[in-house]
Amino acid sequence: MLKPLGDRVVIELVETEEKTASGILLPDSAKEKPQEGRVVAVGTGRVLDNGERVALEVSVGNKIIFSKYAGTEVKYEGSEYLIIRENDILAVVE
Amino acid sequence: MLKPLGDRVVIELVETEEKTASGILLPDSAKEKPQEGRVVAVGTGRVLDNGERVALEVSVGNKIIFSKYAGTEVKYEGSEYLIIRENDILAVVE
Amino acid sequence: MLKPLGDRVVIELVETEEKTASGILLPDSAKEKPQEGRVVAVGTGRVLDNGERVALEVSVGNKIIFSKYAGTEVKYEGSEYLIIRENDILAVVE
Amino acid sequence: MLKPLGDRVVIELVETEEKTASGILLPDSAKEKPQEGRVVAVGTGRVLDNGERVALEVSVGNKIIFSKYAGTEVKYEGSEYLIIRENDILAVVE
Amino acid sequence: MLKPLGDRVVIELVETEEKTASGILLPDSAKEKPQEGRVVAVGTGRVLDNGERVALEVSVGNKIIFSKYAGTEVKYEGSEYLIIRENDILAVVE
Amino acid sequence: MLKPLGDRVVIELVETEEKTASGILLPDSAKEKPQEGRVVAVGTGRVLDNGERVALEVSVGNKIIFSKYAGTEVKYEGSEYLIIRENDILAVVE
Amino acid sequence: MLKPLGDRVVIELVETEEKTASGILLPDSAKEKPQEGRVVAVGTGRVLDNGERVALEVSVGNKIIFSKYAGTEVKYEGSEYLIIRENDILAVVE
Repeated sequence: MLKPLGDRVVIELVETEEKTASGILLPDSAKEKPQEGRVVAVGTGRVLDNGERVALEVSVGNKIIFSKYAGTEVKYEGSEYLIIRENDILAVVE
Repeated sequence: MLKPLGDRVVIELVETEEKTASGILLPDSAKEKPQEGRVVAVGTGRVLDNGERVALEVSVGNKIIFSKYAGTEVKYEGSEYLIIRENDILAVVE
Repeated sequence: MLKPLGDRVVIELVETEEKTASGILLPDSAKEKPQEGRVVAVGTGRVLDNGERVALEVSVGNKIIFSKYAGTEVKYEGSEYLIIRENDILAVVE
Repeated sequence: MLKPLGDRVVIELVETEEKTASGILLPDSAKEKPQEGRVVAVGTGRVLDNGERVALEVSVGNKIIFSKYAGTEVKYEGSEYLIIRENDILAVVE
Repeated sequence: MLKPLGDRVVIELVETEEKTASGILLPDSAKEKPQEGRVVAVGTGRVLDNGERVALEVSVGNKIIFSKYAGTEVKYEGSEYLIIRENDILAVVE
Repeated sequence: MLKPLGDRVVIELVETEEKTASGILLPDSAKEKPQEGRVVAVGTGRVLDNGERVALEVSVGNKIIFSKYAGTEVKYEGSEYLIIRENDILAVVE
Repeated sequence: MLKPLGDRVVIELVETEEKTASGILLPDSAKEKPQEGRVVAVGTGRVLDNGERVALEVSVGNKIIFSKYAGTEVKYEGSEYLIIRENDILAVVE
């Protein structure tokens, strides 16, 4: 099992379909595209300056959207995961 | 439903008319132009160093003005949203 | 009405006369020139790490001097405003 | 009257004589040269993270030495001033 | 014995097999690859602004995954170690 | 008299002999060389986030070693001084 | 005697043998190599935001490993020392 440290999260990628009917890229839309994943493990949270540890907002099983270029790829027991910081998670999909 | 994390906000873009009578661009006016949106979902707020969580100033339904290049585009159930940090919101339009 | 967030302020520009008798530019004086404005709306202030919100020093109606390149231009109901952070305001003119 | 915000100070420049007998510039002495001024108005001070406001160390009338390239020039009622942050003041001349 | 300071950790590298069947590099997968190690010694932890020292999350004997380019190589009594900060450790492998 | 602000110190340079027998520069030794001075005046210290002011560690009369390129040169009543921050002082020579 | 300020430490270099049997440099191993030294004097420690001073973890006489390019060389009474911040010390060798 992978146990992430601090405010890190282990994520399993979720494939998203990127069907583009016409294939035309609008030059105005150069914003970063996010990616989807499912939370597999969460860290214990970061420590505040008063000594408190802040529990993560996401939990194991949550489907999330995160910044595409965030995190580090990890291969563990034949599967591929991504370890990212909670700060790179944009939203939970409910 | 998209549930943004921390001090993030999910926004639906509001189209704004940019009618320029003459079409003349004043070179003196190179400042960043903001964009309008409507708040669709808000995060639980950021955590201060004393452990307190600061609730967002904006609420669901608010019409807001935000920095044009802020945030990440998200496509969810056929609609397009933008996830931005509250810090990139300039003002609420009342 | 525009309600600025946090430590932001909505400003109406005040035209200043720049009469230069001779029109000679002193190369030694390359410092940034500030601009004048009138405060139209103020935010609720920024939140300190102890959870307190610091009220702004400026109030609606104040004539202020601010950094020329600060802020974002906003067009609202036919008028032009500038939204800036209080930190970019240099002084109140009394 | 100009009332500076936060930890800012309004300064009136004091002319300093730069008589150089030989006019030879020592290449070893490329350090920044400071400038002299007299304090005309002081802000209320910056706010600490505990909510306290720290009064400035300088007072109106103080003759000070400050970093040459600091601050913003302001023309007010025919006179020229400089608005700088207290942090750019090196010393008070007593 | 090497006794790391603050939030540092002494690590013994663990060899990982990088068998690539076809040897084809996917250009899409340019993310940083992590490395494995075993914790040999831990520091006393970093000091918070309230004076508290935060004990490390990892312990001696833990198998960990860390950022490939983190840390400093140290040769000590014939063996090679790596001294890294806990912040560069991504996860503990249990 | 020059009264430095905050954590600043006024210093009088102490000439140091740099007798190099052979005059050969070792390319391996490109580290920054420090300079010596004597403390002539000290500030009241910087203010912490809890409102406390931290008295300087150096006192008037101390012979100190400081970073060569730190500080600002000041000419005052015919003498040359250097105003530096205490953080640029490496050690007191006792 | 050299009395370092704050979290600084005065160090005497310890020569380390760098016998490389073959002299072949592995291009994969471009990591920074640390250096050894012996602590000769320690500062009183840095001051936290709560006013507390944190005593150093190292003591006079400790043999330490530190980042090769850290610190400032100081020549004092015929001997050469290095003044570094405790943060640049990686580990104590016991």
